[in-house]
Formats: sequence, C-alpha cells, structure tokens
Amino acid sequence: TRPGITMNDCPESAQVHRADFADIREAKIVKGRSINLALSHRGRQALKQVGMEDTIVSKGIPMHSRMIHSLNGTQSPIPYGKKGQVTLLMQRLDTPHSAETYSTTKLNFAHKLLNWSTETGAMTFLRADGAKEEIQADLIVGCDGAFSAIRKQFLRQSRFNFSQTYIPHGYLELTMPPINGEFAMKPNYLHIWPRNTFMMIALPNLDKTFTCTLFMPFDEFENVTTGDQVIEFFQKYFPDTIPLIGADALKRDYFRLPAQAMVSVKCSPYHLSDKCVLMGDAAHAVVPFYGQGMNAGFEDCLVFNEIMDQLNEDFSAVLPEYTRVRVPDDHAIADLAMYNYVEMRSHVNSKWFLFRKYVDNTLHMIMPRTVIPLYTMVTFTRIRYHEAVKRWHWQDKVRHYIVHSSLYKGL
Amino acid sequence: TRPGITMNDCPESAQVHRADFADIREAKIVKGRSINLALSHRGRQALKQVGMEDTIVSKGIPMHSRMIHSLNGTQSPIPYGKKGQVTLLMQRLDTPHSAETYSTTKLNFAHKLLNWSTETGAMTFLRADGAKEEIQADLIVGCDGAFSAIRKQFLRQSRFNFSQTYIPHGYLELTMPPINGEFAMKPNYLHIWPRNTFMMIALPNLDKTFTCTLFMPFDEFENVTTGDQVIEFFQKYFPDTIPLIGADALKRDYFRLPAQAMVSVKCSPYHLSDKCVLMGDAAHAVVPFYGQGMNAGFEDCLVFNEIMDQLNEDFSAVLPEYTRVRVPDDHAIADLAMYNYVEMRSHVNSKWFLFRKYVDNTLHMIMPRTVIPLYTMVTFTRIRYHEAVKRWHWQDKVRHYIVHSSLYKGL
Repeated sequence: TRPGITMNDCPESAQVHRADFADIREAKIVKGRSINLALSHRGRQALKQVGMEDTIVSKGIPMHSRMIHSLNGTQSPIPYGKKGQVTLLMQRLDTPHSAETYSTTKLNFAHKLLNWSTETGAMTFLRADGAKEEIQADLIVGCDGAFSAIRKQFLRQSRFNFSQTYIPHGYLELTMPPINGEFAMKPNYLHIWPRNTFMMIALPNLDKTFTCTLFMPFDEFENVTTGDQVIEFFQKYFPDTIPLIGADALKRDYFRLPAQAMVSVKCSPYHLSDKCVLMGDAAHAVVPFYGQGMNAGFEDCLVFNEIMDQLNEDFSAVLPEYTRVRVPDDHAIADLAMYNYVEMRSHVNSKWFLFRKYVDNTLHMIMPRTVIPLYTMVTFTRIRYHEAVKRWHWQDKVRHYIVHSSLYKGL
Repeated sequence: TRPGITMNDCPESAQVHRADFADIREAKIVKGRSINLALSHRGRQALKQVGMEDTIVSKGIPMHSRMIHSLNGTQSPIPYGKKGQVTLLMQRLDTPHSAETYSTTKLNFAHKLLNWSTETGAMTFLRADGAKEEIQADLIVGCDGAFSAIRKQFLRQSRFNFSQTYIPHGYLELTMPPINGEFAMKPNYLHIWPRNTFMMIALPNLDKTFTCTLFMPFDEFENVTTGDQVIEFFQKYFPDTIPLIGADALKRDYFRLPAQAMVSVKCSPYHLSDKCVLMGDAAHAVVPFYGQGMNAGFEDCLVFNEIMDQLNEDFSAVLPEYTRVRVPDDHAIADLAMYNYVEMRSHVNSKWFLFRKYVDNTLHMIMPRTVIPLYTMVTFTRIRYHEAVKRWHWQDKVRHYIVHSSLYKGL
C-alpha cells in the first residue's frame, strides 16, 4: 500500500500550505472557539494506515458513555456502545501537523492562497513578509476548511452544486476548573444537559478542566445581556453547574466572546479537472453534533487511498471515482449531524428514548450482524455512512413493529 | 403611492448599471439561449403600478392552454385556467429597459461591478474603455441575475445561507420556421411532448416561428453525437416535429450550441446592513418549469414597494422586513418550479393527471373561494406563494378523499 493519506501525509515531494499567519503548533488554544475533537473508529483506521494511531490515541481521553443531567440534578449514563467501544476526545492542538515527524513533507505556514489555475495547477500565495510565491502542483488537495479558499474556484464553474446552511443556534464555551486538582465531574463521559430548544454539553480536557458548551438559538442569546441574567438563566436550567463553574467566572466568561455560528456545507463534485480535489471540511463541513467531522475527513483520505490503489494512481480516473463514491457518504453524515442536533437536545432525556436505546441494544445482542444501532454503525464501524442511514431506516421499521407489539403485550 | 418599483424604475436620481458590454436594447437575441419569458398576473400587477402594463402586454402572445403531443401524434389541449386567464409570452428583448422612456432614470451599460463596500455603499465599476468609476449609493439593489456579482459580498458575511443546485437536465433550443408565412402549429398554446425522463416544449414567437426546447439529462445528450442519431432520436420520440423543423435544420441546429445548464438558487437574508438588497434572480433563480421567474422578480418589487409605504421608506426597517416577508415565498416558488420539472415531463400525459385536473376544476367551479387549483393560485392570483403551497397540501387531502370515494362509487 502507498504511504500517504492525510493532509500531512503526502508523497515525499509534497508541500502543505496553511493560511494561518503563524505556525499552529506554536499557537495557543483560542479560548471560547475550541470544540474538542472526537476520534473514533474511522479516524483511527486512517491514522493506523500511516502508523500514527498509537501516538495519537495515547494523547486522547477515552469516553464510553453519555451522562444526562436532568433539571433536578440526577445523572443517568447512556453507554455509546458495547464494552470497549470508546470515542477518544482530542485537544485541537494534539492532532494536526505531526507530519514532519513522520515524513519529509514540508509544511509552509503563513501562506495565504490568492489564486490557482484550473488548467495548469499553478498556485499563487501571499507570504507573511508580503511577498508573492508561485508554485506548480501536480495535484492540489483542498483541505482548507469550511470556508475553503480552494473551493472558490469551483464556484466559478458551471454545474457545481453548493450549499452553506447556518443553523439558528450559536455556541458559547465556558470552562469548569478542577477541584483539588481533580476533575469537577466524572471524566470519561460526555455530559449533556438537554433542554429541548437548547442544551449544554461538557467535555473533559487533559488539564482536568471541562469545556462546557452552551448551544442555543441566537435570539435566545440576545435575551441574556447582564451578569445577573446569566446567573438567573443558569439557576433555572443548569443549577448543578453554577458551583462547579463558579458564579463570578460564569458572569465574566459568558460575555468573553459573542456566540459563534455553525455552518453545514455540502457540495458536489469534489474534483475539478484532474488538478484538484476537496477533502475534509472544505468538501463537507458538518455541525458538531455527531462527533464525526474529523473522522469523516480522515476517512476521505482512506477512501481516496483505496481508489488510488484500484485505479493505479491515474488522477484523471481517480478524481471522478472519488466524487462518485464519497459524495453520498459525506452528504449522509452531514444530514445525520443535523438530525442529532435535534435528537441530542430534545429526545435524549425522555424515557421513550431510553426505551428505544434498550430495544436497539437488545436486538443487537440477539442479532449482532443484522441489527446494529445507528450510533454504533456510524462511530464504531466503517459501514458507509449512506448505507448506515439506509439500514437504520429499515431497522427502524423492525423496531417500530417490535416496540409496538411489546407494548400491546403489556411489556 | 411611490412611483418606482422595477429595476428600471428607481427614484428619479437613480442609476442603473449593467455589466453587459453593450446596450442590450441594441443586441440581437442569442440564438439557442433565449427561453421565452412568461408574463402572468403577478408581473402584470407590478407593471400596472408603474403604468407600463398596456405597452408591455401589447407585445406579448397570449397563451390559454397547454397542448400535449402524444407519441402517436394526437394533440390534447389542457387549459391553464378559466376563460380569460392567459399567460403572455414575451420576447426577451421586449420587456427590459423601457425605463428611460418612463422616468429620468439613467441607464449605464457596459459597467462591470468590481467591488462594493458594505459600510459606505461605495461601488467600483470597470467601464468598457478600461477606466474605473466610483459611485456612492444610498441603497444598492442587486438585480444582477443568477450569478449576481453583488451577492458575492453577501457570501463573505457570517450566517448567510446560500445554495445553488444544478438539475441533471440541460436544454437545447431549435427553431420551427413558419409554413407559408403562418405558424407551423397552433399558436396560443404551450406545446408539450412529455416523455418521462425528458421532454420537449414549443413556444410561439412574434415572427411566426416556434422555439422548441428539448430538456434532457446531460448524459442522454452525450449519447446523441451525429446528425443521423439526432434524426433517429426524433423519429422515436418526436416524429411529428421532424417535417415541421426540417430534417436538415434539425441535424445542423442540434449541434449549434452544447446543452445549457439550469440552476436553482436560494439564499437568505436578502439584505446586508441597510445598504443593499437582492431582488429577482440574484435572490432566487428558479428553474424555468413554472413560468414564474420574471413574475416572482417583478412581485419582489411590488412587495418591496408595499413595505416601503408601511415603514415610511426607512431602509433600516424596510430591508429586514422585506427579508422576513419575501424569503418564504421565493423559496416556495423555487420548490414549485422544481416540482413542475418532474410533473411536466412525467404526469402531464397520463389519464390520471387529466382526471385530477378535472376534479380540481370542478371543485373550483362549485367552491370558487375554497378550492383553487394550484396553477391558478400561482399564475392568476397574488396569493402568497408559500400560502398557495399550504392551501394546495390541504386541498390535496380533500381531493384525495373525493377522488377515492368517487372511484369506489364506480364513477
């Protein structure tokens, strides 16, 4: 098999350019705009293929359950899958840019893309010193995020389908400090406070803090404008968190940054002639509610690599095939993330939801190959995303039948 | 009421800039890329308000029915609405730019927009002579079409929702010449050859020709590459048109231009600060299957004018209100046009479709205020597009009930 697949892991002669006007490895975490990264099966398979799985995994915090916080303060765990099926929580700075350690790939920071030619593959960059730099690429891999500069060129072509959809919710991050040097709540859990139209989640960090993220419609954010209103709001909906975050910190940090927007991006095709291909968020930014953003991006690389092997690295055949194979799967995970955005904040706390999970898991135990819970298919297998959705719809019918006949039998 | 509403009909001091590097009034029709314009109630109401209805209407060809051509050559008319309800077919060059005749608005052709400022409203244009020109606008009204240059600035803002969707079909235009100086088929009809995955339509022109437009998936266009294949294809699907278009002309004109793409554009919001507002195709390009593109654009102006009156021409209030009111209606007509894209080529020839039309029209006759066929609501009233869709869904349930109980009674 070929050596390279991720953005950092290109053929030996490759160069990686980033627009950030600094080396991200030396940068500090931007407080309030982190959103931790979840690494699960698909992402790990990609890292494994380039020999980086163990190193990366050792820096993650394993999570095996959700922990639901109800209004009265009771906490109920809901496991993600079977024993041993964990999602790893990564810090944003741990994952990227270990490439130079693993290959001779050259990283260029502080290079802003000004333009590139669809015919020749020539790229023009603006450097931090103000000078322009031209380079010639055999293949341009656009991994430059939700607001991709590479993708702008695609928008100028006919028959390029594109959508960007902002959800009505924004997010705001708060920090829950350690207590006596230990985590303030149980670590190894995704803590969730579902409150129907909005929700808060908390995720553990290596420094024993939790990052609490409040997701709420922008117009509801606008109703909370003073420190006292923040406390009143938390008293009403998240009373158990006030002593843990601290009332003073809460009043202060709530206003540190305005609520941040979240966008879902879909497009097709992913390639432009035989010169350029989009991957990761540049091809399919998803809302963060399924923890699959990074995994889908890493799996893009795995799929691309598989097609490169099948088609003898002939770009003119590989690129259209990559579009054909990958677009339906990325669109499916974008839709699932949007679906979970509703599910997480509304259904997750209901008895009905817990009962459905119970039925799912029981069916899975009885027929492990036939019935696999959706979350398990998405997070702990490499079943293609769009096939997972299809199987889920089919299973839903089966489950519906079983649940209802159970109810009639007075289960 | 205020005088002005269309793109051409701004306050006296207004200027209109077009990118076309020529005065469109002196340009020739671009053969093969025309798609005639349908003018119906909404568009006429807007023209009426600026005193232009009669002039424009006198240049249109009235159409009161569809004419369905089956494979064996039989023709069946399906009226659009009640007697007197007609759609007018306009030539592309007849409608625009009568503004200078009706006001002191200044038209500037051959001005290409390079940039504009969201803060100051300053606009920079490139003129045909290569010089740059700066102007300052109180309000920028972006009516610059599906690929709007004005809209690019919107895409750089956060929380701007945008989608462009190309349908899998392309279109290709052919001309059916007059026979002995007269129309080759009955004029005053929209002729349709529905063939399920594809279709052809023909629309009359003032010069007694018909413009025939073939709508077909791009990959099916790719299967027809020689003159003989064109004739074979038409023999199979549109045999009655071969003598009317002429075999030689058909072989030649079919390859004059490649099949053209069709895009559906949706976005929201329509305004940016209190400096700019999008209207017409720039805000909502629709596929051409409901004949509402121009009408929706003209109605934008009517709605904007109504809101200007309500809110005393205060742009900071008018623009958000215009977005709030108009977005759901434009999205509804975009969806309806997409729906008709399936309906026109597939269902229109079935007996089931004709029976449904019959039930619709009968119900409308019995309860003219309660049940109005969808096509009538969209084309011959100013019922808001999104309300027309809602009423349609409700009526559909009623009709479903009536049709099925009729069938059971052996109607």
